Amino acid sequence: MALIVHKYGGTSMGSTERIRNVALRVAKWVRAGHQLVVVPSAMSGETNRLLGLARELAPTPTSAAAERELDAIAATGEQVSVGLLALALQAQGLDAVSYAGWQVPIATDSAFTKARIERIDDTRVRADLAAGKVVIITGFQGIDGQGNVTTLGRGGSDTSAVAVAAAMKADECLIYTDVDGVDTTDPRIVPEARRLASISFEEMLEMASLGSKVLQIRSVEFAGKYRVPLRVLSSFTPWDIAIDEEARSGTLITFEEDEKMEQAVVSGIAFNRDEAKITVMGVPDRPGIAYQILGPVADANIDIDMIIQNVSHDGKTDFSFTVHRNDYAKTLDLLKSKVAPATNAAQVLGDPKICKVSIVGIGMRSHVGVASKMFRTLSEEGINIQMISTSEIKTSVVIDEKYMELAVRALHKAFELEQPVPAA
Amino acid sequence: MALIVHKYGGTSMGSTERIRNVALRVAKWVRAGHQLVVVPSAMSGETNRLLGLARELAPTPTSAAAERELDAIAATGEQVSVGLLALALQAQGLDAVSYAGWQVPIATDSAFTKARIERIDDTRVRADLAAGKVVIITGFQGIDGQGNVTTLGRGGSDTSAVAVAAAMKADECLIYTDVDGVDTTDPRIVPEARRLASISFEEMLEMASLGSKVLQIRSVEFAGKYRVPLRVLSSFTPWDIAIDEEARSGTLITFEEDEKMEQAVVSGIAFNRDEAKITVMGVPDRPGIAYQILGPVADANIDIDMIIQNVSHDGKTDFSFTVHRNDYAKTLDLLKSKVAPATNAAQVLGDPKICKVSIVGIGMRSHVGVASKMFRTLSEEGINIQMISTSEIKTSVVIDEKYMELAVRALHKAFELEQPVPAA
Repeated sequence: MALIVHKYGGTSMGSTERIRNVALRVAKWVRAGHQLVVVPSAMSGETNRLLGLARELAPTPTSAAAERELDAIAATGEQVSVGLLALALQAQGLDAVSYAGWQVPIATDSAFTKARIERIDDTRVRADLAAGKVVIITGFQGIDGQGNVTTLGRGGSDTSAVAVAAAMKADECLIYTDVDGVDTTDPRIVPEARRLASISFEEMLEMASLGSKVLQIRSVEFAGKYRVPLRVLSSFTPWDIAIDEEARSGTLITFEEDEKMEQAVVSGIAFNRDEAKITVMGVPDRPGIAYQILGPVADANIDIDMIIQNVSHDGKTDFSFTVHRNDYAKTLDLLKSKVAPATNAAQVLGDPKICKVSIVGIGMRSHVGVASKMFRTLSEEGINIQMISTSEIKTSVVIDEKYMELAVRALHKAFELEQPVPAA
Repeated sequence: MALIVHKYGGTSMGSTERIRNVALRVAKWVRAGHQLVVVPSAMSGETNRLLGLARELAPTPTSAAAERELDAIAATGEQVSVGLLALALQAQGLDAVSYAGWQVPIATDSAFTKARIERIDDTRVRADLAAGKVVIITGFQGIDGQGNVTTLGRGGSDTSAVAVAAAMKADECLIYTDVDGVDTTDPRIVPEARRLASISFEEMLEMASLGSKVLQIRSVEFAGKYRVPLRVLSSFTPWDIAIDEEARSGTLITFEEDEKMEQAVVSGIAFNRDEAKITVMGVPDRPGIAYQILGPVADANIDIDMIIQNVSHDGKTDFSFTVHRNDYAKTLDLLKSKVAPATNAAQVLGDPKICKVSIVGIGMRSHVGVASKMFRTLSEEGINIQMISTSEIKTSVVIDEKYMELAVRALHKAFELEQPVPAA
């Protein structure tokens, strides 16, 4: 008997018919002898509907008091879905009980709309499991020290599921999604993209932060911190497939490097067209200049991703960095009006039509020449590289966004990601 | 400065536009110097939508475990509306905070779907009011001793509002509805029906239990028990009418008989076509026979309303009683299969096509001949009376349902209810 946490996304919970399917799948796991904790999202569209109503009354809610109300409103979406799933399980003849985050309780800080889980008291849940019940817990939410409902932000249900699995030392946390698992890249761009049977935690973290939408990045961080065995799998397989087959499907996120895992140099290609590039040209190359340029940007709560400083010529240098495309206009305005005059910059240039393409692979640690193979591949396709950034297990380049699909396909082929990796 | 509780029904909360109107009205009261606690219902249609989803998964939820889930699901409707109203008030520049029943807390017993309020801790609410905030509390729900969400049953938001007003010793509880107040009878049947400026608590209780849908009967009982000054008024007056005018509008429910109140003999005509009549004929007239007949009905959890026992002839008597029309088939079956054989009854007859018409008035206590005037009026219209039941302040008759409108109109005219009562 194992303790298993299942997480189901909004699409899987999108109608009573689909909720019934989730119940049948959960019942199969229970009848195979496992203890089950289930963390469902709100029915698809529900969170948007609720926040849409709120926005009609408060178009720009910025105060903590308003954010508190937004959280209380948004949290009801999951409160409905846990109740419905409990009823569906009871209709299958199982004992099932649902809890809202505040009932568990899942304690968070008070950062409304983006709260962080501080601790989970699993006493009540354990007692229910011991009594033979399936326990269903709302994703996305918790309760702060003052008894206010908080939410974890978009995609927070993944984090809730992993946090529950960590707190309870679950044997595995299965994340059911509308994809098959983690692919070498997006199959809508590269039809030959292949599902990875496993991926290392570090690679998954890079893939998530580089734009792969399969798992919310905070849930991956959580899984890494507490070593929660995590598997991403499809909620669209028939609910009655053999449990062994289901347990081995999808993509396993692994922590032990000496586990038998795929030893590819590069595991996947991530991409992201949500960024924009800004270049400050001709600033004096002196100590403190980076802070003079980027400090005001950070002070304006704008996240900076890649940063490049060119070698200097004649005591002058150029700075380039990328921000989220939503922050582009604001950043450009800030630099032109405040930073350029203060730093005697010659010019501020911006380009929102860029994209970032990254190769990710734990094998890069021990293989040389991976980055240069990437640059050669892009060069052979006539694609100009505007910025480069590297870490131990990834190399990212910024290119013109019109070349994005071409670059992803060429790299996928160059690193032979369409080929299954031979077992180690 | 007074402490005022406002309660708004689902129609008043039916859209963001209407919620904004509620906020404007509440803001007007706050700016007039009052402390406000607001108890809104769920947006109209929402509770039905939620319970409809539940019914798709659990068509006949009867276990306590299922009812617990139904309550958790249904309670979210009000949790959304309090949050939206708080945002709307904040947009008016007021400090506002919303609480779900469990946050106040409003403590109830564990009778899911029909819980009763046991006590309300107003510490948190009082602190907020003292800090200048408008406090918004979910209607319809509370929390039991085990931390489960409970609901009070349909119309429970009226009860929540009155209970909050009682616990906080509010100066007045204003129930905003989609009617103008309490009328002498339903204006859809008698166009001359007149709004009552005031009505005694006992009369209101009879009106509510006899079918007038203006207030939920439990809320009236609660108001009576704790002497909560209660006023029913329209949420469809323009929000910006003068506050004095608004405070005097609608119908005041009074407790002091020596208050200057309308001294009509009869205050209103109530009616109800939700009942059905059952007659057990030719049973032996001996001690214990009433229990032998009605005991099994009560044991089957069927509520009995009126009961009549005829004078006996030749040691035999007839029993007639009424039940809710939904229980008619079940009751008839029970009597024919179990009770009749056990009591040697000659026959069991049923008639679902009946209605109950009642005259209600505290003045009946001190006026003779009121009932006989009722019977004469019906007789002049050729309406046969099938059953009669009386209390100190009401007389009810059961008649063929096809005469209901005729009876109500004739009685309304006979007791001159269309005429304003001269001030006492």
